[in-house]
Amino acid sequence: MTKTAGCCQGCLHYVFDYETPKTLVIPSIRVGFVFRFTQFLVVLYVVGYVCVVQKAYQETDSVLSTVTTKVKGFAFTNTSDADPRFWDVADYVVPPQGGDSFFVLTNMVVTPQQTQSRCPEVGDNNSQQLLIHIHSGILTGLCENYSTTVKTCEVISWCPLEIDTKLPEHALLAAAENFTVLIKNSITYPKFNVHRRNILPHINSSYLKRCEFNRTTDPDCPIFRLKHIVSEAGEEFQDMAVKGGILGIIIDWSCDLDWWARKCNPQYSFRRLDNKNPANNVAPGFNFRFAKYYKTPDGEETRTLIKAYGIRFDVVVHGTAGKFGIVPTVVNLGAALTFLSLVPVVADWVMLTCMGKRDLYKKHKITHLNEVADTETVSDKLNVFTRDYQGLIFSIFPFSSRLFFCQTADKIHSF
Amino acid sequence: MTKTAGCCQGCLHYVFDYETPKTLVIPSIRVGFVFRFTQFLVVLYVVGYVCVVQKAYQETDSVLSTVTTKVKGFAFTNTSDADPRFWDVADYVVPPQGGDSFFVLTNMVVTPQQTQSRCPEVGDNNSQQLLIHIHSGILTGLCENYSTTVKTCEVISWCPLEIDTKLPEHALLAAAENFTVLIKNSITYPKFNVHRRNILPHINSSYLKRCEFNRTTDPDCPIFRLKHIVSEAGEEFQDMAVKGGILGIIIDWSCDLDWWARKCNPQYSFRRLDNKNPANNVAPGFNFRFAKYYKTPDGEETRTLIKAYGIRFDVVVHGTAGKFGIVPTVVNLGAALTFLSLVPVVADWVMLTCMGKRDLYKKHKITHLNEVADTETVSDKLNVFTRDYQGLIFSIFPFSSRLFFCQTADKIHSF
Amino acid sequence: MTKTAGCCQGCLHYVFDYETPKTLVIPSIRVGFVFRFTQFLVVLYVVGYVCVVQKAYQETDSVLSTVTTKVKGFAFTNTSDADPRFWDVADYVVPPQGGDSFFVLTNMVVTPQQTQSRCPEVGDNNSQQLLIHIHSGILTGLCENYSTTVKTCEVISWCPLEIDTKLPEHALLAAAENFTVLIKNSITYPKFNVHRRNILPHINSSYLKRCEFNRTTDPDCPIFRLKHIVSEAGEEFQDMAVKGGILGIIIDWSCDLDWWARKCNPQYSFRRLDNKNPANNVAPGFNFRFAKYYKTPDGEETRTLIKAYGIRFDVVVHGTAGKFGIVPTVVNLGAALTFLSLVPVVADWVMLTCMGKRDLYKKHKITHLNEVADTETVSDKLNVFTRDYQGLIFSIFPFSSRLFFCQTADKIHSF
Repeated sequence: MTKTAGCCQGCLHYVFDYETPKTLVIPSIRVGFVFRFTQFLVVLYVVGYVCVVQKAYQETDSVLSTVTTKVKGFAFTNTSDADPRFWDVADYVVPPQGGDSFFVLTNMVVTPQQTQSRCPEVGDNNSQQLLIHIHSGILTGLCENYSTTVKTCEVISWCPLEIDTKLPEHALLAAAENFTVLIKNSITYPKFNVHRRNILPHINSSYLKRCEFNRTTDPDCPIFRLKHIVSEAGEEFQDMAVKGGILGIIIDWSCDLDWWARKCNPQYSFRRLDNKNPANNVAPGFNFRFAKYYKTPDGEETRTLIKAYGIRFDVVVHGTAGKFGIVPTVVNLGAALTFLSLVPVVADWVMLTCMGKRDLYKKHKITHLNEVADTETVSDKLNVFTRDYQGLIFSIFPFSSRLFFCQTADKIHSF
Repeated sequence: MTKTAGCCQGCLHYVFDYETPKTLVIPSIRVGFVFRFTQFLVVLYVVGYVCVVQKAYQETDSVLSTVTTKVKGFAFTNTSDADPRFWDVADYVVPPQGGDSFFVLTNMVVTPQQTQSRCPEVGDNNSQQLLIHIHSGILTGLCENYSTTVKTCEVISWCPLEIDTKLPEHALLAAAENFTVLIKNSITYPKFNVHRRNILPHINSSYLKRCEFNRTTDPDCPIFRLKHIVSEAGEEFQDMAVKGGILGIIIDWSCDLDWWARKCNPQYSFRRLDNKNPANNVAPGFNFRFAKYYKTPDGEETRTLIKAYGIRFDVVVHGTAGKFGIVPTVVNLGAALTFLSLVPVVADWVMLTCMGKRDLYKKHKITHLNEVADTETVSDKLNVFTRDYQGLIFSIFPFSSRLFFCQTADKIHSF
Repeated sequence: MTKTAGCCQGCLHYVFDYETPKTLVIPSIRVGFVFRFTQFLVVLYVVGYVCVVQKAYQETDSVLSTVTTKVKGFAFTNTSDADPRFWDVADYVVPPQGGDSFFVLTNMVVTPQQTQSRCPEVGDNNSQQLLIHIHSGILTGLCENYSTTVKTCEVISWCPLEIDTKLPEHALLAAAENFTVLIKNSITYPKFNVHRRNILPHINSSYLKRCEFNRTTDPDCPIFRLKHIVSEAGEEFQDMAVKGGILGIIIDWSCDLDWWARKCNPQYSFRRLDNKNPANNVAPGFNFRFAKYYKTPDGEETRTLIKAYGIRFDVVVHGTAGKFGIVPTVVNLGAALTFLSLVPVVADWVMLTCMGKRDLYKKHKITHLNEVADTETVSDKLNVFTRDYQGLIFSIFPFSSRLFFCQTADKIHSF
């Protein structure tokens, strides 16, 4: 029994005996100040930069978004090329269903009454040459007079062929600049179960019926005048309307969901997304072809081909929400504490390298084991500082550094 | 040569001599228990919370998704307003191509036989007033009798004008609630090169031909009845069908790709995404206008304008995949080890502050350097605990804390 | 005054006295080598794996993208089923506006001249049976002869009904394989304010007018031949064209934005996104129905129903940009330093367990406090190594480990 009890006590002592380093207190204000000041710098970095500026204690989540858009406005065109015509939303918005990308028609080349038949390819009357790089139909093998001066080849195609060089120089629907668009955007941060809408809670219906977005006076109004959007993106609507383009309506939902912050409002910005520079570009602007299909009374299919130029508005929603999270906090705190635990290395280095009484400190701090004599001797000149992080310090301070860094300290000390 | 050999040996000793702290073993079960218990708490946090709950050892990736949708069903409408009509998918789904957002028409205001012409604006027969907030065409300057009681102004527009106050109170395509939609969703986590489909490998074709999603009985069937979707979102289909709305079909692909977990199945949920609350809203529900264009036998263009109300279903795919990664593991392990290295600070503090034999421990652990006499003296009362993390401890435990925290310990000790 | 001065000095000493561990230098090359080698391994991991391979010092951001697509090409079909017909972009691309997902029609079942009327359901002439799984219209209650051999029920529907079993076995628009698509993609990394386009700055307009994407000769050309895309995805265009499918054009914008790297170019890859395997699938391929609506001279609405088979091309843009960031650098450096601070634990363990002179080292390193006698004694056999990380080491090296691990070391020592 005594043996067992002794064993138990041994075990207990093995597990619960507490081993702690022996320490030496150096009564040097100078070394202490270096130590405290370095500590202060690390704490300052952690509190100031990591926590306040970078908010590294937060978990993050990406936004999920739904967008509805509704364009309003109408226009009347009366040009020499075509009949007078009234345009409303159903005519100029493609696709009509109002998703996060909508196209507003501003200019077009219309080729009406096309049928499946044969016709000569389009020639260039000015150069009086047959300029056919890419054929616009299936060659029949015949060639005929396109005009009195140009002879072109006959093709099977939708005839008559489109002549898209006849694009109006001034946008046909120049009035589109006064159209407005209502953008409804509802977002979710699934990790935090947060739902928000760009129509903020404090906005009432009557305000929404008459407001218009303005960065200074109405920053929360979700109704945007197209001209305003384009001009905020640094472009001229009438220039852009001729050949078309792509305009990003960027909604930034960066949110700080900590209970003491609770900032989660949309920020609108506008940017042209396509390339204006003609140098390394092809097919500048934005256009596409679509057709309306009809049937003649005798059952033949005809179509009106429209090469539509206009501005595609892409509503781009992005954002990151941050909220206090245990894991990132612990990771960043851990990193900070590691740097705090480096502070003694710096202080030891200063103490054992730069101080006047360095030999005294060395003697008391560091003991040398003499393996042969089984005795301890005080530190010699060579082993001067704590080696825990020596590998690291090596790469930062070369050995000769003492000569340069510590001379000032020595001089100060010698006063 | 002897000199060189000596130098070499010196160098060798400089690089390879090993400096280790001198330690003192305290045979106090109480201090040891504090030390071990604090260690245990840190390990518990790391293993339990960081690894098991938060899976912080994982690298993550965001999902890339492709969605195909195909609606099935037909309806027959026979109301007093319009001719009896049969509706199939080509009639009521917009756009037809079945992407991740599809609109099912449930109600509408149809304005047939519109032509480019002149007509009086729509007046309000009830209030017998000219209520024109926004003109619906280009004013010609003339005004005429809209009805026997109301006089309105003439406009150039698509005439006759739409009277959208005549929206049916009961949804025209009420039968749409029985339509079904097949959703095919294939996802990729590019970082892990993982591809998945929402039609799971164990599901066979014959099951797919007859199944219907049900959270309890058929949770893996990708065919959804529209009524079921809407009711799971907490809405009533027939209410929603009148004015329209937006319904999110949310597919959550959160995956744990560790080889011992291998969980990667879709979770479906449903949520109404637009705002029902009329207080801070404008244009509630969901509708848009589109037109079908015709030509009369004499070549004049006419159109049928449809103001379509209905439910837009948005398939929202989100998710994060996690898989064991070296870097996050090392970072979290590093943070945990840092906290383990804090444990001695706590144990030292307890040992030198709360224990009855604190002065004895202090005497043996801490030596004071007397710079003048070049002697070491044992610790005085003031310097009582390890200063490594003192800056940190200061902010947590004020100095007077000993008076409050340790009295209990003293009392226990005094028994 | 003297008292106050004394108190002040006391305070000053309390705050600024520097406490540093007493250390012992072991002149053992072997222990020193273990220490240095372990240090080297940690530094190697940090520099090699964390910094160079994983670039864990970088902050990351996800891509925002805008895509424009423009298909070019035409085809001529001349089959026994239908009239000869010329097809251009407006005929075969749905939707026409050129977003990030476009559908190229390759095969179809056309049902012209449908009107709202009554007709018998489609029977199966071969099996001479009435095979009606899902009715294709509203049953009138009457049944009639579908053909001389099959009798089916009459329905109210768009008549005549579609017979979609008559899908051509060779794709109608087989010529679609030679169509080309121009993809313009502009991306943004909002956190780093970086904008890029897939038309790289060094590419000029004349090259863009004639180039075609080829992984080896023209990797930067944004014009893709459809056949090439499909074949890079490992599929055969003509097979895929019959029943349709979904093809992903994946653009990877992984960017390294560090000033010394500045790599930010798109990488194209192609992959079939739908499931070819018929085993666990339903509605294989990709098709949808749409209709063109006409009016007869007497005002009756007719439509041409098209069941369109074809390839949907989804442009999927993904990517992560990384750039040097202070917080991730500090976190990873902190984790690395923590592991460096573990190195002495390993070296101590080797020194006190595996070395021949372990008892000598033990004696000088570890002092035992004898609480009763108030004396210090040298280490006994039981307490052999530093306990700072003992809890951790316990779980990795069981106690008997000395027997296995260190025997070799002992043998080496005994030489």
